[in-house]
Amino acid sequence: MKSNTAPWIFTASCPSIIGTVDVVTRYMAQAGNYIDEIHSFDDRESGRFFIRIEFLPQHADFSGEVFKAEFAERAAEFDMDWSLTAPNHKQKVAIMVSKYDHCLNDLLYRFRTGQLNIDVTVIISNHPDLEDLAKWHGIPYYHLPITAETKLEQEAQVRALIEQYDTELVVLARYMQVLSPGMCEYLDGRAINIHHSLLPGFKGARPYHQAWEKGVKMVGATAHYVNNDLDEGPIISQGIQVVNHAQYAEDLIAKGQDIERVTLFNAVKCHVEKRVFLNGKRTVVFGG
Amino acid sequence: MKSNTAPWIFTASCPSIIGTVDVVTRYMAQAGNYIDEIHSFDDRESGRFFIRIEFLPQHADFSGEVFKAEFAERAAEFDMDWSLTAPNHKQKVAIMVSKYDHCLNDLLYRFRTGQLNIDVTVIISNHPDLEDLAKWHGIPYYHLPITAETKLEQEAQVRALIEQYDTELVVLARYMQVLSPGMCEYLDGRAINIHHSLLPGFKGARPYHQAWEKGVKMVGATAHYVNNDLDEGPIISQGIQVVNHAQYAEDLIAKGQDIERVTLFNAVKCHVEKRVFLNGKRTVVFGG
Amino acid sequence: MKSNTAPWIFTASCPSIIGTVDVVTRYMAQAGNYIDEIHSFDDRESGRFFIRIEFLPQHADFSGEVFKAEFAERAAEFDMDWSLTAPNHKQKVAIMVSKYDHCLNDLLYRFRTGQLNIDVTVIISNHPDLEDLAKWHGIPYYHLPITAETKLEQEAQVRALIEQYDTELVVLARYMQVLSPGMCEYLDGRAINIHHSLLPGFKGARPYHQAWEKGVKMVGATAHYVNNDLDEGPIISQGIQVVNHAQYAEDLIAKGQDIERVTLFNAVKCHVEKRVFLNGKRTVVFGG
Amino acid sequence: MKSNTAPWIFTASCPSIIGTVDVVTRYMAQAGNYIDEIHSFDDRESGRFFIRIEFLPQHADFSGEVFKAEFAERAAEFDMDWSLTAPNHKQKVAIMVSKYDHCLNDLLYRFRTGQLNIDVTVIISNHPDLEDLAKWHGIPYYHLPITAETKLEQEAQVRALIEQYDTELVVLARYMQVLSPGMCEYLDGRAINIHHSLLPGFKGARPYHQAWEKGVKMVGATAHYVNNDLDEGPIISQGIQVVNHAQYAEDLIAKGQDIERVTLFNAVKCHVEKRVFLNGKRTVVFGG
Repeated sequence: MKSNTAPWIFTASCPSIIGTVDVVTRYMAQAGNYIDEIHSFDDRESGRFFIRIEFLPQHADFSGEVFKAEFAERAAEFDMDWSLTAPNHKQKVAIMVSKYDHCLNDLLYRFRTGQLNIDVTVIISNHPDLEDLAKWHGIPYYHLPITAETKLEQEAQVRALIEQYDTELVVLARYMQVLSPGMCEYLDGRAINIHHSLLPGFKGARPYHQAWEKGVKMVGATAHYVNNDLDEGPIISQGIQVVNHAQYAEDLIAKGQDIERVTLFNAVKCHVEKRVFLNGKRTVVFGG
Repeated sequence: MKSNTAPWIFTASCPSIIGTVDVVTRYMAQAGNYIDEIHSFDDRESGRFFIRIEFLPQHADFSGEVFKAEFAERAAEFDMDWSLTAPNHKQKVAIMVSKYDHCLNDLLYRFRTGQLNIDVTVIISNHPDLEDLAKWHGIPYYHLPITAETKLEQEAQVRALIEQYDTELVVLARYMQVLSPGMCEYLDGRAINIHHSLLPGFKGARPYHQAWEKGVKMVGATAHYVNNDLDEGPIISQGIQVVNHAQYAEDLIAKGQDIERVTLFNAVKCHVEKRVFLNGKRTVVFGG
Repeated sequence: MKSNTAPWIFTASCPSIIGTVDVVTRYMAQAGNYIDEIHSFDDRESGRFFIRIEFLPQHADFSGEVFKAEFAERAAEFDMDWSLTAPNHKQKVAIMVSKYDHCLNDLLYRFRTGQLNIDVTVIISNHPDLEDLAKWHGIPYYHLPITAETKLEQEAQVRALIEQYDTELVVLARYMQVLSPGMCEYLDGRAINIHHSLLPGFKGARPYHQAWEKGVKMVGATAHYVNNDLDEGPIISQGIQVVNHAQYAEDLIAKGQDIERVTLFNAVKCHVEKRVFLNGKRTVVFGG
Repeated sequence: MKSNTAPWIFTASCPSIIGTVDVVTRYMAQAGNYIDEIHSFDDRESGRFFIRIEFLPQHADFSGEVFKAEFAERAAEFDMDWSLTAPNHKQKVAIMVSKYDHCLNDLLYRFRTGQLNIDVTVIISNHPDLEDLAKWHGIPYYHLPITAETKLEQEAQVRALIEQYDTELVVLARYMQVLSPGMCEYLDGRAINIHHSLLPGFKGARPYHQAWEKGVKMVGATAHYVNNDLDEGPIISQGIQVVNHAQYAEDLIAKGQDIERVTLFNAVKCHVEKRVFLNGKRTVVFGG
């Protein structure tokens, strides 16, 4: 389309069957919406269909609510999971962090400069160190310390804050505490974690030290959805950096931080742009 | 779709206007075709629309000819340039080469092993060196020497061979002769060239030597469609390789060859899979 | 060596001739210095020799001044340009910036967290926008506006500040004003600029727009020493990012910023670690 | 140095102690050898020193034998493992392969065109498929079938051929049989294997299928020395390729082949250029 108007985003997924594309495009045509981009994928292994459409309504009286009401029936026919997102909808994001600030610093920069179209509403940490950084950005900061004994209590406080701030997405930006199964369940599908290795290699603790000992020639990072298995959630994005024999564990850590930052950013960006779809243990990412 | 059946490929491009997606998906639905993948792009700058669909006919009596006849009217309404390609259609490809054989060797390997779904019907060279390689692959080889004086004559012979072998795509796999304007025009839109630099840097001759003198820290290659301007045709694919001070021009040449091979392969693969669309001086490449 | 002691750094370059390695290693041995790493390169084209050594003195009374006095004679024999840098010497760095803050933000982060072993003493800008960021880091900020008429005057003020802060390195972190020849000369050899394209492509203004028009499939950045030719100084480091047809100029700009940040950081890091040597129009970079 | 003369290569490694660089450079100076490049590394963790020197003898009567005799004493003082390699020494290489020919095809191409300075003396396979390819290159081909029962017998035949052809390096170019412990021991330190994943991820069988199931966004390959642990030998080189949801296992296999080829080539090249040093479970690679 000629202009720079931000589009509405429609997404859907359902069992693969003939007619899934047509039911959507037909409705778009009837509603007089201009399709700016359409992208679909049919997974022959999982038997599931995925579609993402960016569109520009042409009728002045276009209403997201009306769209939702009208499309609901059609969607039900195909057993679709689907969503409609208004232009420039800023997801409310809560960031959880421990001491390492490189990912937090990068996300806040992207937020501040508009590269990430989100609203960072709250920063939660088990340490006090990063309060200054949050202050400078004018974002509420909660220091919730944690020990083995107070873990479940602390997680309850975290959940309370997540609710209080109407959080849509939680980003674990090098939050180093292992979440309890209950917490993973609570966050299922709406939390992205950055693990500082190229999964499935080097799961768990101190992956850069493991990497150095193994003598790998690349280090990497993986951004994935949180689920019950530690470091096992569906992968959204990965990145790598070449390393050599002259780099010790602390050098791998330093180099790895750059990869973590950009990999987490990519994943969050794809998520808020509704480009990511869960597909069993995997993900479909359109244009990521 | 559940099976591994190779899909039919539909492509179209036309001026951006509402209804371009719908006219296609409506027809697909009416004809009972299963859309395996749909991808469109609307270029707000050039005001042009592009779409590519992989589909699996569901009716036993599906006919490409009938599709073409039925869709022609709809296409005309939107002033579409469009194409329909049968599953596993192997484009007839003529490869032109001079002395360097790395690209030719790679393309023949991909052809031989089925990675490139093409039919290499003829190899044309201004040198005799690579005849053995062609022979081993059982492909006709024509040695057509060329000098400044005999250029137009030689090009006429090349065109004759291109016609003789019903060529759909010409691949200039490090064919080092500069084509005459007439030859460029003849090949317009159906010839891919590999230039051994990351255009627009280092056009013309001896790009690796130019690169070494400039002291760049990366060398690259560019695969593009042939048009009238030397090294200026629409870019399809690019690749790079990191280099350092310890590499002289001959080392850059050696390293560059790997990039040339894979870049040219990528471009040819995207072209034969109908993923590439001309968009003014640029290209749209779906899933490249 | 067993410990984590930071090493002294010795560098030298001179015309290629037999004995250049030996004169250095012999002196190191006599002085009882432990060589932690030695790396040399002999450029057969420019006929110049380069060497870099990280060493740990073993004698408690080791003195950099004594080393310099003792080695001076030997160096003179070979017409060496050479330097000796104490462990953890933090170069005094002045950063010049305009409005875009991504490179500045990144450098300050690296400085703040110790990843870049420098002392950012002053930030100079022709705009007032980034004063807040400088304040939060506790670094003096000077807003020196500039117009075509006041250019030479403004540059004189910049030079005064560079002197005032005993600057060793000037980093042009997306400082968008074209420097006068006199300013380039003044900065020769001690100023690093980041140009937002993969030189030699897209020199000058608006390289991302040029890149978009050309339809390239990669955008890049180049960090280089400032000299008299616009965007022509010896290249230190380059980086690229893959792009596609769906990205307009503003998207290339956004993507490019990530490459600019890391490329500039790499170059500054290599420079302060004395890994970079001028070699005519090119550079030698050990372990970059 | 001014000319293009190929250099002699000296390598050594020993326990870290003062004097290891000097003993070598002093000898080089006394022998009147021109050092074209020197590179050392001191691993503070393993306490081991590594050095590689490319040099050009200046005396017409230089003799490798004399060098070896003279340096032996000095080397013994430091308990050095060391080697001296004549210019353009072509290591005799035996390639083992099963059915997949992409790595073999690539190595033979590099050999044929001189990019790999080796002498491929024999190709051994447990299948007959690739005999034609070997024939065209004029290299003896041995088809040695293998079953669970005949394994040790077949391995004895392989060893006999390795001996018969004075093999210095064995390259397992997608040789799919698991070697017995005895065979691994026999090959220890002089056999390079390509594993089609980015180790330590996806060890063992069908790594691309494992990768697809895991939903990773990158596939890779690892070239490593063979030792007793399956896929655990010291890593020499690694490479990756980005993949997405639209690629099934067979697509990952196809894409992965390109990475395997270039990764194996890199590793073999580094090995024959004496750039690789064993360092416990890891490797030091100079200029790789």
